[in-house]
Amino acid sequence: VPKHIADSTVRRLSLYLRFVEEALERGLRTISSDTLAELSGTTSAQVRKDLSFFGSFGKRGLGYPIPELAGRLREILGLGREWRVVIVGAGRIGSALAHYPGFALHGFTIVGVYDNDAAKIGRNWDGHPIRDIAQLARDATREKPDIAVLAIPADTAQATADLVVRAGLRAILNFAPTPLRVPDNVTVKTVNMALELEGLSYALAHNR
Amino acid sequence: VPKHIADSTVRRLSLYLRFVEEALERGLRTISSDTLAELSGTTSAQVRKDLSFFGSFGKRGLGYPIPELAGRLREILGLGREWRVVIVGAGRIGSALAHYPGFALHGFTIVGVYDNDAAKIGRNWDGHPIRDIAQLARDATREKPDIAVLAIPADTAQATADLVVRAGLRAILNFAPTPLRVPDNVTVKTVNMALELEGLSYALAHNR
Repeated sequence: VPKHIADSTVRRLSLYLRFVEEALERGLRTISSDTLAELSGTTSAQVRKDLSFFGSFGKRGLGYPIPELAGRLREILGLGREWRVVIVGAGRIGSALAHYPGFALHGFTIVGVYDNDAAKIGRNWDGHPIRDIAQLARDATREKPDIAVLAIPADTAQATADLVVRAGLRAILNFAPTPLRVPDNVTVKTVNMALELEGLSYALAHNR
Repeated sequence: VPKHIADSTVRRLSLYLRFVEEALERGLRTISSDTLAELSGTTSAQVRKDLSFFGSFGKRGLGYPIPELAGRLREILGLGREWRVVIVGAGRIGSALAHYPGFALHGFTIVGVYDNDAAKIGRNWDGHPIRDIAQLARDATREKPDIAVLAIPADTAQATADLVVRAGLRAILNFAPTPLRVPDNVTVKTVNMALELEGLSYALAHNR
């Protein structure tokens, strides 16, 4: 496996895995690059190129063997391992995410829930006691979380990201509607619902 | 305003608006292209180019006048209008979105909540009765919704999108982890949490 794969390739591999798993559930044995391309909105040449990174699968003209392809994609994407997650911001967005079936499917386990609101700290949140965000660095030395989910407002997001990075975490899923600055060895993925809503609003206003 | 602005430009305009509104709240009068560029992770030349689409603002060297810029960006993005939204899938994701402050800020008003689960239909969901998805087309002729939020599993997403398009809606916010095929006059924005989770998992597994 090459050391650095572009984000856009990783995103396509995720899509391929989705369709390969669906095909597996339906009992299919093989899937062609043409079918994967059509489902994923790309070309079959792109599919073959993406999958050739990881060695050769199956025989020309027979399609990719589904169970092997699924296993290889899951391995590449780091699935099947346990990732330890802290939720920062004990509100509805964090809760929706924690109950999202994909969260457990990806091996994501919640090890702590944090907030900075004294009225919330100590209360119960889906079975987790809400902890003071000031405790994060201390807890992290013991619990070794991998990922922080930031489900907090934009104005505290950068300061909280700095705190998460100082606590030694190297991955952030950011729901705050603002870009975050982090060191190169930390990965941030932003789910910016405000941007998506404004994209829809723009399209409707301009009658596209 | 030009007829077709690239999605990437619309996304930057959304980011600029966020920072301009924060500057407005702090009582600032002007903001420079350098500052907007740094906050948004782009170049000042790009900022000037993006904003020049919409006529000239302020004087060279004095920065952009903040209230005018905020007003113009809001207008371009179609904010300040009411957009009528139906939520399809009466679960936690739709609920988190409906309570997200950005939802009301963008003028998004929920006019109906739908599900296909007979056990849910007729029950109360955050003040809305859950309706049968089979009713959508009939309701839409009367209520004229603009946007459908699809908070449903991948395997029913395309069939539901087809139904939404036949009912005359022209914008979809898709939370199902699958791409949707729609006609050219319909805009889809996908919030794919599974892709973001797999991107983080990949980065952690490969120790980037």
